Amino acid sequence: MMMHPQWDFALKKILPATQILNDPAACISYSYDNGRHQAIPAAVVLPQTTEQVQNIVAWCQTEQIPLTARGRGTGTPGGSVPSSNGLVISFEQMNNILSFCPESRYMIVEPGVLNQTVQTLAGQKQLLWGPDPSSQAYCTVGGNLAYNAGGPHTLKYGATKDNVLYVEAVTGAGELIKTGFAVNKSACGYDLTRLLIGSEGTLALFTKICLKLSPKPESSRLLQLWFADEQTACQAIATLTQTAVNLSALEFMDRNCLTLLKTHSDLIIPPTAQALLLVEIDGLPTELTFYSTKIRTLLPDLLSCEESTDPKHAWAARKKLSPILRKLAAYKINEDVVVPVGQLHALLQTVQEITQQENILNVNFGHAGNGNLHVNLLLHDSAQMPAAQRCLEKIFAAVIALGGTLSGEHGIGLEKKTFLTQAYSAPTLDLMYAIKKHFDPHNILNPGKLLP
Amino acid sequence: MMMHPQWDFALKKILPATQILNDPAACISYSYDNGRHQAIPAAVVLPQTTEQVQNIVAWCQTEQIPLTARGRGTGTPGGSVPSSNGLVISFEQMNNILSFCPESRYMIVEPGVLNQTVQTLAGQKQLLWGPDPSSQAYCTVGGNLAYNAGGPHTLKYGATKDNVLYVEAVTGAGELIKTGFAVNKSACGYDLTRLLIGSEGTLALFTKICLKLSPKPESSRLLQLWFADEQTACQAIATLTQTAVNLSALEFMDRNCLTLLKTHSDLIIPPTAQALLLVEIDGLPTELTFYSTKIRTLLPDLLSCEESTDPKHAWAARKKLSPILRKLAAYKINEDVVVPVGQLHALLQTVQEITQQENILNVNFGHAGNGNLHVNLLLHDSAQMPAAQRCLEKIFAAVIALGGTLSGEHGIGLEKKTFLTQAYSAPTLDLMYAIKKHFDPHNILNPGKLLP
Repeated sequence: MMMHPQWDFALKKILPATQILNDPAACISYSYDNGRHQAIPAAVVLPQTTEQVQNIVAWCQTEQIPLTARGRGTGTPGGSVPSSNGLVISFEQMNNILSFCPESRYMIVEPGVLNQTVQTLAGQKQLLWGPDPSSQAYCTVGGNLAYNAGGPHTLKYGATKDNVLYVEAVTGAGELIKTGFAVNKSACGYDLTRLLIGSEGTLALFTKICLKLSPKPESSRLLQLWFADEQTACQAIATLTQTAVNLSALEFMDRNCLTLLKTHSDLIIPPTAQALLLVEIDGLPTELTFYSTKIRTLLPDLLSCEESTDPKHAWAARKKLSPILRKLAAYKINEDVVVPVGQLHALLQTVQEITQQENILNVNFGHAGNGNLHVNLLLHDSAQMPAAQRCLEKIFAAVIALGGTLSGEHGIGLEKKTFLTQAYSAPTLDLMYAIKKHFDPHNILNPGKLLP
Repeated sequence: MMMHPQWDFALKKILPATQILNDPAACISYSYDNGRHQAIPAAVVLPQTTEQVQNIVAWCQTEQIPLTARGRGTGTPGGSVPSSNGLVISFEQMNNILSFCPESRYMIVEPGVLNQTVQTLAGQKQLLWGPDPSSQAYCTVGGNLAYNAGGPHTLKYGATKDNVLYVEAVTGAGELIKTGFAVNKSACGYDLTRLLIGSEGTLALFTKICLKLSPKPESSRLLQLWFADEQTACQAIATLTQTAVNLSALEFMDRNCLTLLKTHSDLIIPPTAQALLLVEIDGLPTELTFYSTKIRTLLPDLLSCEESTDPKHAWAARKKLSPILRKLAAYKINEDVVVPVGQLHALLQTVQEITQQENILNVNFGHAGNGNLHVNLLLHDSAQMPAAQRCLEKIFAAVIALGGTLSGEHGIGLEKKTFLTQAYSAPTLDLMYAIKKHFDPHNILNPGKLLP
């Protein structure tokens, strides 16, 4: 676990000693993400310039050292967990805003800038940046790109992929590339920007990122829609989608969520409610009124619908779910699957059947407007792991059969890579391997992640 | 120009004779697009199934025959002009709607379906598909994907790339791949969908396309904003962008456009006007009123602003410009560049200076909300070609220097491929070549297009 003396010597030629961490305590704090995996790196480097990034990659290439990029480690599927005894490249010191052009609606930032920093600065000009993961306050823009992060407002404002104009990045071959232009419309060559977004640090390291900004809404309103059963709630999601009601967020919580919230929050829940939709409308005040009325008309099967007088409080209850579950179950598995909106109820039923068969407690909530369900398996102890694994295999197969995807916003990392063969045919995966090989010929960038 | 007898024999093993065209008249009508290039293919094949597409590719691979995909040939930069004596694969007989799921907001189509067909069907459920090129009535969805087509409403609804969930496609290696899932949010492997969109038939042939649909607005309003000079109009575009006014279209016409429209249309133009913005707002009627007022408040320097009582008529005048120019100048060059919105006036000035130096008449209009300017060079005769070429070189250099891109929605094709070295560094282009090589190892798919 100690850094080799020759590493120390070589790294100090690239970086000042203050930008190299190798004491065991520091290495341990870079050894895990927000999930279950851990591996201790031999050292951590904290570059401040693109040139330093290039020199680090060149050295890793020569020495065949696995190099894992890291934002703030808020991911869950192990994507930023390093190789054991490998090198971590943390972008926490590349955190400058390089330019902000409200009149062209873009901002150029270094990868270590926090998502919230971007939102705050953009907000001063009535603009926002689309991706709003719940870790917004402490996750980085570079990490958001690596995993194509989303959030509740992805429904209206898109995921990370929809909100980046171009990147500059250092490939695994050590080449600095620029993938596009500071414009939101281009038909000029192959789209390398979107190829790198969501590639989980396996193809290139972002050094400069040009973000596309969107107009911030004038106002918003949050409705709480209560349903007597989950099926009616899922039908309501499809109805709202089909009747083209323009919503900014549409969150679902199942009956087990409500049971938990009854005990663990002060949300007032109607006694017969078995499902909740949080529906956000944004725009002009007149729009809020129009759509609130329209939603009530479209959904006669509603148990009740109230406007939240304290939207922050209602969102807090929704965001509380993950920590509550973690407290309840030492071995919580939080999945992140997506199906076409019209298939949400079919997915929910399947998940409940599968978990009941294996006697595992299951709780589901998520960004239902995108068909994105966070399927939680709550295990009492580690002995339930094999049963949970069987559940996951069946759930993923069901998701693919319903036309869906293995991950909506968390990514693949270490957790799901073996399942990628279910999602893509062999020729499709072969092309991904070929791309990996060209961007990273020595397989030094985050080896063993994403691809099976 | 005659098809080799052995081709005839081989193709008839793959397709019925009715799906093979080889008489010279037919071959000529597949020899050009809507631009200036022409090359006559040896034959045209009209597959009806994915299997036929795969067999055609396999045969072209074995025989080393250049294969150029074609929608309806409405492009301009020569992307669908075949190789001389090569084979054209036209998707006009693969034009089925395969499924339409309004509740999940997607439609799965074959590549030969017309854009308008999709819009009409989607419209019945109050939905739309984002891309709306002016050739909408007769261009195909497959062609829209090949060139990442846009249109006036790209400002709000995105270009083709923003409106496709996944594709099935046959690569140049003959492999059938499926690039994604019928969901609008995914963090699952490398994004091959966007890699193929805009690749101009050089990587793979689309056989099935899953389109993302959007809610159709309740109503819309078109404002005509007249300005005393072009600079004030360009400032207005930046102001509207910066103050986050949510518009569905924002079109610019320069002083030379207005001169032409005075003679060639019945649009009533204020005598002192030197620039026009067509501004479309869509949404609820109350929104139209709110934003119309807000726009007037934001732009005190307006000459006049009137609501179009006949929006179709105003759009028709805008769409008339291209045909008028073509009539006026036998050798019209219609460029399609994009710069950051805040740089539009700088671009306009540069273009006007460059063309004046070369004594070439210049007319500019375009999708200004996206920074997308159609720069037209009007040549009296072909002797002006070298001068026009010098202009283009300088214009492209200026566009890149301003942070822009060589094409917004027309693509690169034959016209602009030599300029790609200005837009991308050598390492970036090398990655594109590497990707081309893996998707199309025998270089049979649209050889000589897009990449320099």
